[in-house]
Amino acid sequence: MAPVKNGRHLFKEIASGFPEPGKTTAYDETQTIDLEKVPLKGGMLVKILYISIDPYLRFRMRDPKEEKNFPLFKIGEPIDSHAVGRILRSENTKYKAGDHVYGRLPQEQYTILAKDADVTVIQNEENIPWSLYVGVAGMPGQTAYVGWRHFAKSKKGDTVFVTTAAGPVGATVVQIAKAEGLRVIASAGSKEKVDFVKSLGADVVFNYKEEDTRKVLQREGPIDIYWDHVGGEILDAVLENTSLGATIIVRPSLTYSIPSNLTCRPVYRHSLIFERDITIYGFRVHVIMSPEDRDSFYKEIPKAIASGRMRYREQVTKGLENAPQVLLDVQLGKNEGKSVIEVARE
Amino acid sequence: MAPVKNGRHLFKEIASGFPEPGKTTAYDETQTIDLEKVPLKGGMLVKILYISIDPYLRFRMRDPKEEKNFPLFKIGEPIDSHAVGRILRSENTKYKAGDHVYGRLPQEQYTILAKDADVTVIQNEENIPWSLYVGVAGMPGQTAYVGWRHFAKSKKGDTVFVTTAAGPVGATVVQIAKAEGLRVIASAGSKEKVDFVKSLGADVVFNYKEEDTRKVLQREGPIDIYWDHVGGEILDAVLENTSLGATIIVRPSLTYSIPSNLTCRPVYRHSLIFERDITIYGFRVHVIMSPEDRDSFYKEIPKAIASGRMRYREQVTKGLENAPQVLLDVQLGKNEGKSVIEVARE
Repeated sequence: MAPVKNGRHLFKEIASGFPEPGKTTAYDETQTIDLEKVPLKGGMLVKILYISIDPYLRFRMRDPKEEKNFPLFKIGEPIDSHAVGRILRSENTKYKAGDHVYGRLPQEQYTILAKDADVTVIQNEENIPWSLYVGVAGMPGQTAYVGWRHFAKSKKGDTVFVTTAAGPVGATVVQIAKAEGLRVIASAGSKEKVDFVKSLGADVVFNYKEEDTRKVLQREGPIDIYWDHVGGEILDAVLENTSLGATIIVRPSLTYSIPSNLTCRPVYRHSLIFERDITIYGFRVHVIMSPEDRDSFYKEIPKAIASGRMRYREQVTKGLENAPQVLLDVQLGKNEGKSVIEVARE
Repeated sequence: MAPVKNGRHLFKEIASGFPEPGKTTAYDETQTIDLEKVPLKGGMLVKILYISIDPYLRFRMRDPKEEKNFPLFKIGEPIDSHAVGRILRSENTKYKAGDHVYGRLPQEQYTILAKDADVTVIQNEENIPWSLYVGVAGMPGQTAYVGWRHFAKSKKGDTVFVTTAAGPVGATVVQIAKAEGLRVIASAGSKEKVDFVKSLGADVVFNYKEEDTRKVLQREGPIDIYWDHVGGEILDAVLENTSLGATIIVRPSLTYSIPSNLTCRPVYRHSLIFERDITIYGFRVHVIMSPEDRDSFYKEIPKAIASGRMRYREQVTKGLENAPQVLLDVQLGKNEGKSVIEVARE
């Protein structure tokens, strides 16, 4: 068989504001790949099916001179994110052709994984859409599930506040908290998102563009557990309306990285952390997730999705060529549900 | 015996900036007390010896409309703080005349404690100065000792950064961290303070007014454990120079409450809490201190002081009439060591 086109989503230059399609990242079709003959050196050839476009990817477009810890994208190479692919050929005895695998993979149509690559084989016994394995059944769902499990330490009667509650992490947190019988206050940025979050059973849901978060929390608080996706002035409003001993779990979403690539909107009320015995947890899910966390996640969540108990919103865009634009849309909050690119269906 | 004068340090009005001597608080001599006849109703009559003047007292001068959680001072009544007194008469069988007691007591020369008052009898077997029981052997020392014990979770090879390291909390943290064999970076605001902190064994000590904290931390970091007394731009500089998984213990001192009575200097780099898996602990020592914490503190610290292993700086001002001015001096950072008022020697 002749070589085929291997479309790639490349990192082109360090971002200074929002990523610009075609400039910060760009779709490229110049590479070809011979699917039958390309040498695997003990690894595997994977056809990418679904890739995740996440707010946090913006963090990875910074200057390596300014950021030493966070793994940054390399100029001229495909960006990477969580993805589901199907193995076409394998020289690794742990994986076989036909397996569906999940992991952080380069954004290209076909990719070769080294022989020491660590990806998760997804059985999908529940037969849910493969795209969900990069969303509610993937990293965002794990973020909510594992973060809550490690840090929330909820008590009966607690009041929880969740921002960007219609997003894949926020909506999962809302549903976990409601399943524990807690009172949930949630905010989102459109009528449609608010309606979705209400349908998840949240007790108080408001559009933060129409209602002042501080006033809602003054009326409905105090807050015992805050799942923070936004930082800045909203974090201040929450700090002012916390109970003693409150817990804050920070998972900055897009507004954390605006307006510049370095600073967030400022927080002024951090003395309340001391005055109210507050604990703040920052975490990246791959750092804290134990094998037990992972097992119980895959045991519970796909089943809950299949049965309709765990709900989600998803926006699937077809074609890797659209990835640069979707990347910007996610930063602008234009997406209606978890953003996924369908690179191929099967 | 005729009634005697009972000088009191009264809260006069809600503060808007720094407390003004004679305006925000004032010394008052209009009250008298008959030490032999004043009815105790099952309680005790205590002669106050040493009182603590702490930065956090400013937090307690706010408007009750704006602050519901923190115990505020009441207008027209003596302010209170940690103090050591001697019991003159007792109708409570748990305490007897002659006992020295420690607790949060009204700032007046003589005070009557209700029968359910909960104060700690200090034996002082080591015969250290009584004033130290409101300093390194009192609440500030407990803050350092118990906060470190609960939250620091230090590992071999950790680098610790301590701000206001010549203060009673900071200096104790420096000494605890050095006793654990950790590397300690510390900052203070004068040559004399820097010299004192160096004498405690800290590895890198600098005057934050002369050297840029950010540059020092870039050179000497990354920081694994930060004991935060200041917030604001220094917290940002630390956040930028943390290791992955760093711990921040926030104990805001004076600059947290400046310039207004509500807001702090802003923090912009809070997205790093997420990016670097950082945990931030705020606490008030009386909330977290267990009976075991308290026992081991009183078992260890007075001995360490008596032996010279635990060092401190102390500034004792004689006469309760000076309390309003000392209160301001502490907010301005003018004190040279833990500020204590000697109300009476014995």
